Amino acid sequence: MGTISRIQNVAKRIIAKKEEGYKMVAVVSAMGKSTDELVAMAYQINPKPPKREMDMLLATGEQVSISMLSMALDQMGYDAISFTGPQVGIRTVGLHGRARIMDIDTTKITQALEDDKIVIIAGFQGVNEHDDITTLGRGGSDTSAVALSCVLQCPCEIYTDVDGIYGVDPRLYPPAKKLDRVSYEEMLEMASLGAGVMHTRAIELGSKYNADLYVASSIHDIPGTLICHGAAEKEKPITGLAVDEGEFMISMRKVPFDINVTSAFFAAVAGKGVNIDMISQTSRIDGKIHISFSAPMEDYDTVEAILREFEEEYPEVQVTIDTDVVKLSVVGIGMKSQTGVASKYFKILSDQHFPILMVTTSEIRISCLIPSPAKERAVMAVADAFDL
Amino acid sequence: MGTISRIQNVAKRIIAKKEEGYKMVAVVSAMGKSTDELVAMAYQINPKPPKREMDMLLATGEQVSISMLSMALDQMGYDAISFTGPQVGIRTVGLHGRARIMDIDTTKITQALEDDKIVIIAGFQGVNEHDDITTLGRGGSDTSAVALSCVLQCPCEIYTDVDGIYGVDPRLYPPAKKLDRVSYEEMLEMASLGAGVMHTRAIELGSKYNADLYVASSIHDIPGTLICHGAAEKEKPITGLAVDEGEFMISMRKVPFDINVTSAFFAAVAGKGVNIDMISQTSRIDGKIHISFSAPMEDYDTVEAILREFEEEYPEVQVTIDTDVVKLSVVGIGMKSQTGVASKYFKILSDQHFPILMVTTSEIRISCLIPSPAKERAVMAVADAFDL
Repeated sequence: MGTISRIQNVAKRIIAKKEEGYKMVAVVSAMGKSTDELVAMAYQINPKPPKREMDMLLATGEQVSISMLSMALDQMGYDAISFTGPQVGIRTVGLHGRARIMDIDTTKITQALEDDKIVIIAGFQGVNEHDDITTLGRGGSDTSAVALSCVLQCPCEIYTDVDGIYGVDPRLYPPAKKLDRVSYEEMLEMASLGAGVMHTRAIELGSKYNADLYVASSIHDIPGTLICHGAAEKEKPITGLAVDEGEFMISMRKVPFDINVTSAFFAAVAGKGVNIDMISQTSRIDGKIHISFSAPMEDYDTVEAILREFEEEYPEVQVTIDTDVVKLSVVGIGMKSQTGVASKYFKILSDQHFPILMVTTSEIRISCLIPSPAKERAVMAVADAFDL
Repeated sequence: MGTISRIQNVAKRIIAKKEEGYKMVAVVSAMGKSTDELVAMAYQINPKPPKREMDMLLATGEQVSISMLSMALDQMGYDAISFTGPQVGIRTVGLHGRARIMDIDTTKITQALEDDKIVIIAGFQGVNEHDDITTLGRGGSDTSAVALSCVLQCPCEIYTDVDGIYGVDPRLYPPAKKLDRVSYEEMLEMASLGAGVMHTRAIELGSKYNADLYVASSIHDIPGTLICHGAAEKEKPITGLAVDEGEFMISMRKVPFDINVTSAFFAAVAGKGVNIDMISQTSRIDGKIHISFSAPMEDYDTVEAILREFEEEYPEVQVTIDTDVVKLSVVGIGMKSQTGVASKYFKILSDQHFPILMVTTSEIRISCLIPSPAKERAVMAVADAFDL
C-alpha cells in the first residue's frame, strides 16, 4: 500500500469483492516506503540496532496501514475492523527479523466475519513465546496472507508491485512472458535460486497446505499468475530461468587425494555455518585432485579465512577465488517427462562460447555456473530457445 | 521526545540516573509532532475516523519512540527493553481516545529490572477488555507514568516541554514565578480550571496513591516543581491563578418565580449532558427572578436550542448570551487557614473598574467571571498583589 489514494484503491477492490458476496479478510503490508524509512531512522540512532527492538519499530508500519485502510472502508460505508498480528495470535518461532509462523488463532477473525465486518490484518508481524513482537522478513506479508488462507481454508489472492510471475526477470529479458500458472515445486526452486518475487516461506506454506495462490498487480487490472499444485504450462519443458549473482566460486588445485583432508576441510566450512551450494571434484591425477565449490557471497570472509588456514597446512595446494560468476538455472516440471532438456541447455550455452564452470541438477532444475560477462548473452539465448 | 538528538538526550538522562544506582523505568510519549501528523493523515482519509481505529493508529507513535529509545540506550552500552502498553497489561476501561487505566501487570517489568535492564514503556496507551488498543487522550503519557509509579511504588519524575508548574501561565504574565512545590488539591483545582499543564487523570491518580510527582523540563537542566500532598508554599494564601476562556454566560431575566419552571429548564440542560459550571439567582422582584449561569463553549449549540424552546414557552423572559467572558480563579490551600483572601481578591478586581459577573467558591478556590476585555489587566493586578 502506498499513498492515501493507494489505500482508497485497495479499499475499493475489497469492496468490489465483498459486493460479489465474499466474506473478506485483507492482509496488508506497510505503506509505500515507510518500512525503509523506519529502518533508516533506526540506523541513524544505532548502526547495529537490537533485532527485538527493530521488530518493535518495524511492526508500526503495518499497524498504520491496517488502521488507515479500516478508516477508508468506514468512510466508504463499510464496517471494518483491524487487528495487529499479535491480536489475532499469529504465533511465531525463530529469530527476530525472520520469524516463522507456527499458529494462528482464528477466533476473533471468525467472529468479526460473522458480524459481517471486513477484517483487516497486519501482515509481516507476529508474536513469539515471550509475547515479543516479531517480523517475518522482507515480503513477509505474503506469508501472513498465505498462512491465514491456510487456517481459514479460503483462496488467497496477493496484490503486489509485480503483476505476476514471469519465466525470466523482465529487467534481464524484456520480452519475458508472464506465466498463467506455475507449480509450487517450480516456485520453490526459483525462490531458492534468487528469483524472489514471492517470500520463500509463503510458497512453502502454500505448497504444504495445498492452497491456490493468485498473484497479480495491485495497480493495474490485468490477469496475474496462479500458483498451484502440479500445474505445468502445457508441453513446455522449461517454465523459468533464474539468475543468481549472489555466489562466488573457489577452486583448489593439487589437493592430496585423502578423504581425511577433504572431509576435514568441508567440516571446517560447515562448522562455520556456510552453506556450500555447488561442488565438483575431478578424478585423481598423480595422487592429487581438483575441487571446486560455490558459496553465498555473504560467507566470503568466513570461507577465505578457512582457505588461508588450509593453505598454511598444505602449501602445495593452489587456491583461486572467483567472485565474477553467475548461476543460471532452468526450472520446469516438464523435465520429469521430457528427455533431452539438459543436452539442449548445454548446447545453447556452449554455442555462446564461454566455459561452464560447474553444474548441479535436481529433478526439475539444471544449474550452470558461468562467468559474469556472459550473463546477458546467455539469458537471451536460453530464454529465446525455451520460449520463456 | 522530539528528534533523534532529543532521544539521545533522554537516553543520557536515563543513564545518568541509572549510574546513580537506580533501577530505571522510562515511560515515553510519541516523538515531536508525530501524533499530530498521524491525526492529520487519518482525517485525510476519513473526516470522522472510527475511534477504535484511531487508537490503533495513534498507538504507533509511542511504539516508535520506545524502540528508538531502547536502540539509543543499546548504542550507548546499556541493556534496555521496550514494551507497549498492551505488553505490560495496562488494562483500561472507558471510551477509545479517553480510556482510563484500571490495572497494570508488573510481572514483565519486575523481571526485566531484576535482569538489570532499563525498561522503556509506551505511554498514552493500553488495552481494553476486548484486547483492543486504547489511548488515554492528550497528555495521557503523564498518566501512564504516574500509574506505573503507583503500582511499582517508586518516585515519578516527568520531563516535558514545560519546565515546571507556574502560579500563573507565563504567556499571560511574563514575570510569573515557578512553584517549588504545589499540593495535589491545588493541582486538581487548577487542572479542572483549564490550567492544563498536567493530565487531570495523572493528578487524580497521584493524589489517590499518595505519590510524589516531580515535573521538570526535558530540555533545560533546571529545577522543576514537586507535586505532593498538603505542601503549601510557606505563608502564601494563594498558590495559583487560573484563567479559563472556555465558558460562556447565559442570563435569563424576568423568569417566573416558580420552582417547576426553573427545575424543568435545568433538567432539560442536564438531560443533554451539559455541565453547568457557575450559577446565580437574584431574589424575587415583582414575582420574577433573574438567573445567570455559565457552561462550556462546546455545549453552546445544545444550550442555545434549549433556550429557544424556553423562550417560545415563556415569551416574557429576556435571554441574553455572552461569549465574551473569562473565568479568573485563585487557588490556594493557604485559604483554609488565612482569612480575608476573598475580600482582598474582590478588592483587587473592583479597583480595576469592571463588573464581576458571577462568583463561585470552593474550600481552596474563588472563581470570578469577568468580561474578556478586562482579562489582561485583571491577571496583572491579581498576580502582582498575590506575588505569583
